[in-house]
Amino acid sequence: MDPAPLAELAARLQERCLRLGITVATAESCTGGLIAKAITDLPGSSDYFRGGVVSYSNEIKMALLDVPAELLEAHGAVSAQVARAMAAGALLRCGTDTAVAVTGVAGPGGGSAAKPVGLTYVAVADRTGSDVRRFVWSGDRAANREASARAALEMLLERVDTHEAAARP
Amino acid sequence: MDPAPLAELAARLQERCLRLGITVATAESCTGGLIAKAITDLPGSSDYFRGGVVSYSNEIKMALLDVPAELLEAHGAVSAQVARAMAAGALLRCGTDTAVAVTGVAGPGGGSAAKPVGLTYVAVADRTGSDVRRFVWSGDRAANREASARAALEMLLERVDTHEAAARP
Repeated sequence: MDPAPLAELAARLQERCLRLGITVATAESCTGGLIAKAITDLPGSSDYFRGGVVSYSNEIKMALLDVPAELLEAHGAVSAQVARAMAAGALLRCGTDTAVAVTGVAGPGGGSAAKPVGLTYVAVADRTGSDVRRFVWSGDRAANREASARAALEMLLERVDTHEAAARP
Repeated sequence: MDPAPLAELAARLQERCLRLGITVATAESCTGGLIAKAITDLPGSSDYFRGGVVSYSNEIKMALLDVPAELLEAHGAVSAQVARAMAAGALLRCGTDTAVAVTGVAGPGGGSAAKPVGLTYVAVADRTGSDVRRFVWSGDRAANREASARAALEMLLERVDTHEAAARP
């Protein structure tokens, strides 16, 4: 089965967030704005999507998302710890109910033995805490970025579904 | 003549910024990440693009780009004044040599007699000051967003060219 396109995932996210009154923010490194772009391709997205940060450099991760310098030094920008910190930073700075963060090596450059091209961490945060997942994509730069954006939207959808389940009588 | 596609403009911007050592940041409202996405589609973009803010809400324009609340109240989010303030805020917060900002009514909703669908302001800032231009696009949401992103990349290219001219012996 082919993976759902970004537009379809974004439409599902919008329908649920509008129904449940949940707001969303993004913090993007390797996807570089692709998630926010997919979300805002849809009219009406401004009713739940507040915005976010494209933190392509470590300086912006620190300045706009409050990622501690020590975390970047100890674990590197592409790490579960930094993904969680980016999501928590976006949640706080953007004042939303939930936030998603992506950090990875999209390629073709930037890979190493320890952190190969395709390695990507996606984190979702809300007021109850955060989840993070590790992926290793095997496509080219465009395919890796698309896969990361898809994973981010899917993790947001899962998180929103837990809100929905909790709200059920 | 067909307008240059975003990928071609982004490639030209990257070539010039890398050659001249100029760094870039973005502040996007109606384009919602499209400019950053187009820039980061290219490998090597991290050598000059530092990142930016997707400021879809007024709260994020204030919190992450230092746009004064009084400016938003007096002129509205879609105004030349707010576009300039967004660009100046991105420049300062991201610590780059130049920054571009876009605010507009992409449609189909959100238009009014005074601020119709398609009305868009694009501002570019560097340490010498800022320029702003007003556009009224006549396409649908996708076409208006694309035209805004194209205008932003073209204004960045013009600004970078002035650096190049100034550096010439």
